Amino acid sequence: MSIEQKLLELQLILPPAPKPVATYVPASLAGDLLFVSGVLPFEDGKMAFTGKLGSSLTVQEGYRAARIATLNALAIIRQELSTLDRVQKIVRLTGHVASADSFAEQPAVVNGASDLLVEIFGLEGRHARLALGAAELPLHAPIELEFIVQIVPEEK
Amino acid sequence: MSIEQKLLELQLILPPAPKPVATYVPASLAGDLLFVSGVLPFEDGKMAFTGKLGSSLTVQEGYRAARIATLNALAIIRQELSTLDRVQKIVRLTGHVASADSFAEQPAVVNGASDLLVEIFGLEGRHARLALGAAELPLHAPIELEFIVQIVPEEK
Amino acid sequence: MSIEQKLLELQLILPPAPKPVATYVPASLAGDLLFVSGVLPFEDGKMAFTGKLGSSLTVQEGYRAARIATLNALAIIRQELSTLDRVQKIVRLTGHVASADSFAEQPAVVNGASDLLVEIFGLEGRHARLALGAAELPLHAPIELEFIVQIVPEEK
Repeated sequence: MSIEQKLLELQLILPPAPKPVATYVPASLAGDLLFVSGVLPFEDGKMAFTGKLGSSLTVQEGYRAARIATLNALAIIRQELSTLDRVQKIVRLTGHVASADSFAEQPAVVNGASDLLVEIFGLEGRHARLALGAAELPLHAPIELEFIVQIVPEEK
Repeated sequence: MSIEQKLLELQLILPPAPKPVATYVPASLAGDLLFVSGVLPFEDGKMAFTGKLGSSLTVQEGYRAARIATLNALAIIRQELSTLDRVQKIVRLTGHVASADSFAEQPAVVNGASDLLVEIFGLEGRHARLALGAAELPLHAPIELEFIVQIVPEEK
Repeated sequence: MSIEQKLLELQLILPPAPKPVATYVPASLAGDLLFVSGVLPFEDGKMAFTGKLGSSLTVQEGYRAARIATLNALAIIRQELSTLDRVQKIVRLTGHVASADSFAEQPAVVNGASDLLVEIFGLEGRHARLALGAAELPLHAPIELEFIVQIVPEEK
């Protein structure tokens, strides 16, 4: 099954790709590596969650925020490649989790992204990963995700 | 116009490339990707600004610090490639902004780097980007920048 | 001398490669770049140090933690490539150091990783580097390291 068919099967609808609000671009391709700009948990044009893990948000809310941010990244990747079927594999995911003092469950939060990637892409969705605790994030987002994706070469 | 000519036109003078103070190198080339070590806002041999955004520094000061750190990165890139004209494009920029509690305008700070890149490199200066809030940075720097640059292949 | 022989000479014994506890993988190869998942200072199956630099841990302890985390990364790299002799060079190292308020000596901590890499790999161990201050890290680790490694092509 293609990835685009898989999205339909999972009834996942991607949001509009977030537009950079400054002089940068949503993603940049170098060779067969697509570097995606940082994505936040935007849903229906606004941040689905704000605040920090370990104070205003629960791990479950953080997990959902990570899932929503991932949908934003996929929207960018589809916009860049025309179709998600040109994704060869998800190479690396870094999850920056806004963390209040002594919060140490960043991995459980970033799982919201990792689980969705494997759900959609299967084995090719398995990625190298970092989970980190940020002091603050833009717009008081609870999570910002960074993706590096390998694409299928054009000639295939 | 070449990038080196553009620098002259903009009357931009690059500082000496910062020297690593430990067992690492200013930049590392893998294939056609140049990974640059983290750069801080050094000017005239000392940090142009210290402190955190959201407490001791304004967004405007952070913006200027980002611009100065970018000049340091360009100095490293020129040192590695002999000339900035061997830059194919700026692939990704990550701005780590030292952020006091509840500061959420990291993007406005990192714009100081993004704007300068586009001013110098034009379309090829447009990059994927992350803006993040760091708890602390080396030497109390307000910003540390990370660059990935694609270079023009040797045979060209 | 091969890298594996060098490890023997230095009497360095790698720990078991840490196993991801979620839906990600220890490392991901794209072309000749190996992206390693974040490593923590695990030793004998538990965290060798916990806490933050600038409060509960000294720079010397952080340095040792960085060294131990590096051994974990090397264990992953050997597991992925069968042998460390397939490492072409260490491209980039990022050290995320859990930092209490006003701690600014992240570079001295990350030197624990950089020094070991050069000790083992010589010139090919010299890498681009970032040293950053994280608010919090998984499992209260004092450091998390991120590696990008270039591998020797298969055909050699």
